[in-house]
Parts: sequence; structure tokens; C-alpha cells
Amino acid sequence: MEKLVTSNDQLVYNAFSFAVAAMAISFVYYLVSRSRVSPAYRSAVTMSAMICGIAAYHYWRMFNNFADGAPWNEGYRYADWLLTVPLLLAELVVVSGVARDKAKGLTTKLAVAALLMIATGYPGETAAAGSDASMIWFVISLVFFIYILWNLFAGEVGQALKGQSGAIGSKLNNLRYILLVTWAVYPIAYLLGDNESFLAKAFDLSAGDSATLIQVGYTVADVLAKPGYGLLILGVAIARSESEGYRAA
Amino acid sequence: MEKLVTSNDQLVYNAFSFAVAAMAISFVYYLVSRSRVSPAYRSAVTMSAMICGIAAYHYWRMFNNFADGAPWNEGYRYADWLLTVPLLLAELVVVSGVARDKAKGLTTKLAVAALLMIATGYPGETAAAGSDASMIWFVISLVFFIYILWNLFAGEVGQALKGQSGAIGSKLNNLRYILLVTWAVYPIAYLLGDNESFLAKAFDLSAGDSATLIQVGYTVADVLAKPGYGLLILGVAIARSESEGYRAA
Repeated sequence: MEKLVTSNDQLVYNAFSFAVAAMAISFVYYLVSRSRVSPAYRSAVTMSAMICGIAAYHYWRMFNNFADGAPWNEGYRYADWLLTVPLLLAELVVVSGVARDKAKGLTTKLAVAALLMIATGYPGETAAAGSDASMIWFVISLVFFIYILWNLFAGEVGQALKGQSGAIGSKLNNLRYILLVTWAVYPIAYLLGDNESFLAKAFDLSAGDSATLIQVGYTVADVLAKPGYGLLILGVAIARSESEGYRAA
Repeated sequence: MEKLVTSNDQLVYNAFSFAVAAMAISFVYYLVSRSRVSPAYRSAVTMSAMICGIAAYHYWRMFNNFADGAPWNEGYRYADWLLTVPLLLAELVVVSGVARDKAKGLTTKLAVAALLMIATGYPGETAAAGSDASMIWFVISLVFFIYILWNLFAGEVGQALKGQSGAIGSKLNNLRYILLVTWAVYPIAYLLGDNESFLAKAFDLSAGDSATLIQVGYTVADVLAKPGYGLLILGVAIARSESEGYRAA
């Protein structure tokens, strides 16, 4: 492992610290917000808390890793995603309106796809920049990424969402597009971070610029995709709870 | 005590960090999940939280021990198991359907067997690799291990489980097999970790490979046997609570 050399240490350093604060406080926020929704949707809010708590831990580790000038361990991000991405999909299933008997199988399917997406992305990101291995793993990981998005827009989740109308239907639709937009940042940051990639070459990025972009890009995406996405999940869960007559005590 | 020399430091390092995150967040998850089950089964979920909290602490210690390059203290694992394994068995008794008047005696019996299994495994693991002491303690520890499994499959717990049918019966059956499969990893990792053992020789492992395998093997087994097993316990506890008319508020 080598040290992380960026073109703007202070920006990266501040991004990590910002993420620690945002994740840790969102962890607490979602824990205390559980009682705002009915027991049927509470696990979705619990999962938001878990996602933010896990991310707070990993950003704390990354902050210290970077501040200490120790060899950079990109494994923290992947350990984080390995735990949090299946949860992000599982909580979407909870509020999506998929019938309860189908929900379990669907969650398993999406979680396995997410695990494979992340497990195959890691060897690519740690391979030599510009190597064939880096691009081959990127493409394999992207296949699972596309499968997940396909499921959300056309597959089982997509079908379930089609049947929802009114305020809840439009909230769910927003949720899906926010997920699409924030998740799109990851493969773009991956390509920009590899300073031998066509994308990095098109922008004529130095290795330091690439490292800054990948770390800040991933951090911004994580803040939107975890605490931000959790707010939308909470909104749907509250709307569903209220429409089913639940009133927080 | 000597430093831990592995063939893949980064893998071991990431496994420990992953376990800290998984255990700590599961601790919180089981704490907030207590209200999902009726008071009769709540102690099982409380024990899952305690198990994961204890493990989070010990993985934190092991992470620091390894990252600091200090002499390696395998005692952290045994201190962890000494506390957590009796709890793993006690929570199984709570949800197993063993009559309440028999549950206390049975729990004591299983807890004592677990304590003896771990207390006799420790001198074996810290004895010189390949020494007679290493194998003798391994065999003594294995006797208690087999007694516990015998109890779960044929003894008192086994008998209680036989009488259960339907969804709860099949969940309990899965629980028992998951316990069997995850627990089987421990003696296998023990033998692979001893690079003089017949198993390590069969695979022609270097001392560094053995150390990597034992640490990663124990870590994977702990994640499955603690947070993973806790999910199954929670599932049985929810099913029993609902079948007895309990509804979470």
C-alpha cells in the first residue's frame, strides 16, 4: 500500500471530517425517528440508522488514516459498501409496496447482486491504474450495477412502484431517481480516479487531481446516498404510516 | 508473546475492521429490536445485543494490537468467547420451546460445557505449534464441543425441537444447522492455524498463510455466528411472539 497523494490535502481532509459529522449525527437522527413510523415500516428507518453508523465508523478510520500519513487503505470504503449497500436496497424494498411474501426473495436477490458488485469492484480499484485488470473488474462490477438499476426501473421493484399513485407514488419515484443519480457518481469517480482512464485523460488530470476527485467524489456521493436517501425513505415511511392510520404517540 | 506475522496483512487488517463495524452496528440493531418481540422472548434479543457488543470491543482491541505491531495477544479471542458462547447457547434455549422449569438447569449445563470448551482450547492454541500439548488440549476441548452439539441434536434441546412443527419448527431447525456449520469453522481454523498440524501439512501452508487463515477464518465465523445467528434467533422470537398474539406498538 502507498500513501494517498492528492493535489489538495486540505479539501480531502475536510471532506472526510464533514462526512464523519454528517454520518454520526444522522445515525442518531434515524434512531430517534423510528417511532415516527408504524411498526411495519420501522425496519426501514432502523436500517438508515445502521447505514449512517457504519459509514461514520469508516469515515473516522479514513480520516485518521489520511491524517496520519499512513499507507492508504482503500479497503475501508469497500468494507463500508459491503455492509451498507445491501441495507440501502433492503430498506427500499420495505417501503416500496412489494407484497410481503415476495419481499424476502427480492431483498435476497438485490443484496447478493450488491455484494457481487462491490466484491468485484475492489480488485479493479486496487489494480494498477490503467491496467487491463482495472478495466475488466470495472466492467464485471458494472454488470451487477446495471442489473440492480434494471430491477428498480423495470424489474420487480419497478413493477411494484408502477402500481402506486398519489403522493406516495411520486415520493417513491423521486427516491428511485435520487438513487440513480447518486449511484452514477461511483463509476464516474472510479474512472476519474484512475488517471490512465479515458475519462481522466479527456480532462487531462494529474495523479494528484485524480486522487482528490475520487475521494471527494465518493464522499459527496456517500453523504447524498446515505443520510440524504434516508430522508426520502423516512418521508415515504411516514406517508404510508399516516395513510394506514398510524399516529406517533 | 510474539508479533503476529501473516502472509497478507491488509486482508487481516480489513477483516478486523469489518468485524468492528459489523459487531458494533449489530449491537445497536439488537438493542432497538427488543420491542419487536414479546417480553417472554425479549431476553434472547438482549443477549444478541450483548454478544455483538462484547465482540465489537474485542475486535477493536485486536485491530489496535495488530495495527500497532505489538506482540499478538490471542487471549482477546478467548476472553470474547468465554463471555459470548454461553450467551449464544442461553438465547437458543429461550427460543427453543424447552419447558420453563427445565430451561434454567439446561442453560447452566450448556454454559458450563461452553466455558470448559473454551478454557481448555486456550492452552492448546497458545502451546507450541505441533507440540503434544497443542493436540491434547485440542482433543479435550473437542469433547465439550461434541457434547454441546449432541445436546442440540439428540439431547434435551434436540428433544424439545423435535416437538415443534410448522414455520417455527423449520426456523429452529435452520438455526441448529447454521450453528453446526459456523461452529465447525473454529476447530478447522484451529488446525489450519497450527502449521504443524496434519491439516496444515496437507495443504502445505507456510506459517504466514496459517496465521492469515486462522485470523480471517475466525473472523468470518464470528460474524456469521454472532450477528448472523442473532438474525435467526430474532426471526424465531418474532414468529413465536406473533403466534402468541403479541403486536409491537
